[in-house]
Amino acid sequence: MEPQKKLINSADSCVDEALCGLARASGSLSLLKGHRVVLRSDLDNLRGKVALLSGGGSGHEPAHGGYIGAGMLSAAVAGGVFASPPPASILAAILCLHNAGASGVLLIVTNYTGDRLNFGLAAEQARNHGVTVEMVIVAEDCAFERPSKAGRRGLCGTVFIHKLAGALAEEGCSLDKIVSTVTEALKGIGTLGVSLSPCSVPGCLPSFDLPPGDMELGLGIHGEPGIKRSKVASADEVVKTMIDHMTNPDSQSHLSLKPGDSVVLCVNNLGALSCLEMAVVTRAAIICLESRGVVVARVMSGSFMTSLEMAGVSLTMMKANQEILKLFDAKTSAPAWPNLSSVSVSGRSYITDAPIMSTRPQDNTHPEGPLSPVMHKALERVCSTLLEKQEELNSLDRAAGDGDCGNTHAQAARAIQEWLQHHVVPGCPGQLFSVLAGLVQEKMGGSSGAMYSLFLTAAAGHVTEGQSNAAAWASAMHAGTQAVRRYGGADPGDRTMLDALCPAVDELMKLTTAPLSGQMAVLQAAVQKATVGAESTRNLTARAGRASYIAAERLTQPDPGAVAVAAILRAVLEVLEGKK
Amino acid sequence: MEPQKKLINSADSCVDEALCGLARASGSLSLLKGHRVVLRSDLDNLRGKVALLSGGGSGHEPAHGGYIGAGMLSAAVAGGVFASPPPASILAAILCLHNAGASGVLLIVTNYTGDRLNFGLAAEQARNHGVTVEMVIVAEDCAFERPSKAGRRGLCGTVFIHKLAGALAEEGCSLDKIVSTVTEALKGIGTLGVSLSPCSVPGCLPSFDLPPGDMELGLGIHGEPGIKRSKVASADEVVKTMIDHMTNPDSQSHLSLKPGDSVVLCVNNLGALSCLEMAVVTRAAIICLESRGVVVARVMSGSFMTSLEMAGVSLTMMKANQEILKLFDAKTSAPAWPNLSSVSVSGRSYITDAPIMSTRPQDNTHPEGPLSPVMHKALERVCSTLLEKQEELNSLDRAAGDGDCGNTHAQAARAIQEWLQHHVVPGCPGQLFSVLAGLVQEKMGGSSGAMYSLFLTAAAGHVTEGQSNAAAWASAMHAGTQAVRRYGGADPGDRTMLDALCPAVDELMKLTTAPLSGQMAVLQAAVQKATVGAESTRNLTARAGRASYIAAERLTQPDPGAVAVAAILRAVLEVLEGKK
Repeated sequence: MEPQKKLINSADSCVDEALCGLARASGSLSLLKGHRVVLRSDLDNLRGKVALLSGGGSGHEPAHGGYIGAGMLSAAVAGGVFASPPPASILAAILCLHNAGASGVLLIVTNYTGDRLNFGLAAEQARNHGVTVEMVIVAEDCAFERPSKAGRRGLCGTVFIHKLAGALAEEGCSLDKIVSTVTEALKGIGTLGVSLSPCSVPGCLPSFDLPPGDMELGLGIHGEPGIKRSKVASADEVVKTMIDHMTNPDSQSHLSLKPGDSVVLCVNNLGALSCLEMAVVTRAAIICLESRGVVVARVMSGSFMTSLEMAGVSLTMMKANQEILKLFDAKTSAPAWPNLSSVSVSGRSYITDAPIMSTRPQDNTHPEGPLSPVMHKALERVCSTLLEKQEELNSLDRAAGDGDCGNTHAQAARAIQEWLQHHVVPGCPGQLFSVLAGLVQEKMGGSSGAMYSLFLTAAAGHVTEGQSNAAAWASAMHAGTQAVRRYGGADPGDRTMLDALCPAVDELMKLTTAPLSGQMAVLQAAVQKATVGAESTRNLTARAGRASYIAAERLTQPDPGAVAVAAILRAVLEVLEGKK
Repeated sequence: MEPQKKLINSADSCVDEALCGLARASGSLSLLKGHRVVLRSDLDNLRGKVALLSGGGSGHEPAHGGYIGAGMLSAAVAGGVFASPPPASILAAILCLHNAGASGVLLIVTNYTGDRLNFGLAAEQARNHGVTVEMVIVAEDCAFERPSKAGRRGLCGTVFIHKLAGALAEEGCSLDKIVSTVTEALKGIGTLGVSLSPCSVPGCLPSFDLPPGDMELGLGIHGEPGIKRSKVASADEVVKTMIDHMTNPDSQSHLSLKPGDSVVLCVNNLGALSCLEMAVVTRAAIICLESRGVVVARVMSGSFMTSLEMAGVSLTMMKANQEILKLFDAKTSAPAWPNLSSVSVSGRSYITDAPIMSTRPQDNTHPEGPLSPVMHKALERVCSTLLEKQEELNSLDRAAGDGDCGNTHAQAARAIQEWLQHHVVPGCPGQLFSVLAGLVQEKMGGSSGAMYSLFLTAAAGHVTEGQSNAAAWASAMHAGTQAVRRYGGADPGDRTMLDALCPAVDELMKLTTAPLSGQMAVLQAAVQKATVGAESTRNLTARAGRASYIAAERLTQPDPGAVAVAAILRAVLEVLEGKK
């Protein structure tokens, strides 16, 4: 079994390169020469303020480097993947912040033995250099009912501490005040994770085995064992299980939550959960908390403290009063902090009423007019023609597509016939076009339905009861054709309905100048052009639509879509000519 | 073969629930009743301005709903996973924006047939309702050298168009001006993706097969085929291949890039690439572009237009002049827009010099003093004692840990002996402690090394050449012990070195008040307490360190760490007593 392939250059270089990528991509971060330390570029702005330093093993990006900026961390120290950073680099970072004029340095450390010892050692060394240093240890994991002596693990709640401490430091608070505020806030923070997959340290095999379809509750961000394995349940059930466990008073590491409490919720992608799933889980968590009477004040959802490519999610809740919310809402320039609104999630109305409109124009009733009888007759003729040609069109389509072109057109014809039985034909041609557009969109289906619907909809505005002379009809046909070309993405010559439609419309445009006596001749010529155009598709290579996937030499018949258009136009002409 | 398990409630409900999750989590978004449409909650702010609507199939989150806010989109319409949204919902969204008083509506549509037709139909319907609507089609895929009639696909470059158009609309620009500006910008945008894994639509099998260790270049965000499969190469090589392909002038869909050109770079996680890999790829892309003389003006790196849980990345480049950069940098409240700096990436200095400090105190030379001889002698005695006890300590450790406790202490002893051969013992005890801390940190290793180093470092500041009376020594021992307790996380009674150290230090604190004549008695009593304490660990349950994983009934010997401490203290006492 080989380690999983990753998009890196080497397991040895990936941490340094990732830090470089982070620092370079941001305009406000820099790297400390000779160390895996990322710092604010504007260290001058720390003068007289408390500086904040965090860090830990890599593989949890964007933690912690992504949280560096005004209003959050001043610097972060990275170890190797899942390994604590060396004390010498931590000390170098502390001294750098001290030298920049910081009034003191707060170390924000996750509760892992390596991090405690290494940060502790650097802190003591820094004190010997005359630096005022304090340390806050974050240990907010809610997994274990009886945590071992090592205590609860530090997880994504650390990001909340970065934010609160950062806002306080930016305000100019003293080190003592920051320590006491975040120490108090920490009591109201809890985190629990669930994962559907393991992760693997670059160059190594996966950190643990998890059969497909199984999930593990309460595991650590380095793949440390959790508390329970089970089959993957629904998102709602998983979230309920998590929140039940996190708030279970029988557990020594629970977060006490009662109705009326206000919380900030962080839904954290452990690495590889899709954003779609993240949003589903976010909804589930908000609803679950609200169903218990908890006020969800703010929500952040995204990748905040990952575990490489682990497909999982953790929930962090922080009890929040007005003071906490003010600090949470404060601005920061840290690149990984999300663009959040400062409006309460619970209690906000989030449904907007839809505009009142008929979504089915075919249901509307319109008054008849002088043009109604002839349009009724033309429609009937079009429908009967399409039904007569159903098998011919299917046959043409069998050579080029899925052989249902005739059926599709017949569906439209029957839908129109059905509609004609229960409705009068509106006197306004544009209204009729809208009705027909609605009918074909709904009943015809496929791309033909979309194209006809587009044609009719775009044409509708150009020919109204007040403006229904030959020129108006011509410009309506032209507008419809243009819409089909534009949105459909095909041109004449591509072996589509446009090969019949375009030459006909070009001819019809002569109606804008033709004398009344010459109009019928123009119509006849237009229909003739459509027929010739349809026939000419026999020799064309398909460049759009389904037929474009068929080898050109197999296409020896005309395009059924073009043939249908020519037939429709001829049917209309026959009615106008008064034939039968 | 079963569909992959996902953290959702059902394939049917996941899109609606994800939209709900997005809208609820944000304080500034709402849902349009009866449609899969997300809107700005503050529609009133659209009055007199151009509104922007985008959308498309789901599964690309945070696109497009996450880009709704002041300075970006006004609304987004979602289809099913990888399916175009229905015209009726697009129309409802347009009318809603129109009713809010928008002066016009711009549709930003990705170049897929379904999206073109459905947005086109809705646009034509909206025009019939009297709405001023325009459409911009984004087609910036650089994959195919000879794109088919359907044209280039619309990919992550769409997010740039959302941003530019949004900034223009927020400024109050006219619809025409926005269309012409983004149409021009589109000519300078190109995207190419690479993936290491397929994705799978909820409830379905993976969209394609890709053997582990293979990657595919140029595939679409719905899993459409790309242009080349190969073994996963290094990140640098993959990025070079991508940028070569994107800028190859022989390709009809290339982006023309020459030295001196300025670009905005988007490194987009297609779903499941780890953030660590993302940062490595980001670095590679910046360096590759700069090596061609291209100025990288801005970089955004993260999940912007995903393809469910596809493990891959796409690069989008947008040629940028000052006008484009101004629009790109403009503020937006859209939740998925990252917290970016407006400093140029290229040309910025991003390395900070490390503070000048000796990282190895054991290399520093310190002057001798009156205490040097006795401290030298005590050190020698401690070292020889630890070497004598090497096997005894190993033996005790075999019952509780990995049996190397004696070796670890012997390593420290030999390192100190070696150091003593080449250095004088400083007259300042604190300086000696720092030297010893450096030595044990470097040579002793393990958690013992960290603990002793911590002890010595924390003690160092309390006993100096000028302040080296008995009380100072006592408070140094006390400070060291406290540091071990605090950072190590163990307490007396946990079966660790503290069970010898703490009782001894409690006794030593009597030195602060003891008369000179009584000091030796205090020292003797302290060593006696340490010995008794070490012996007492025989009856203790291990609650910290490696021994805590061993069943209590198997631990019948004293803790080796505590025995070592007692031995060290006794060695020092013997020297002070002048014995031998």
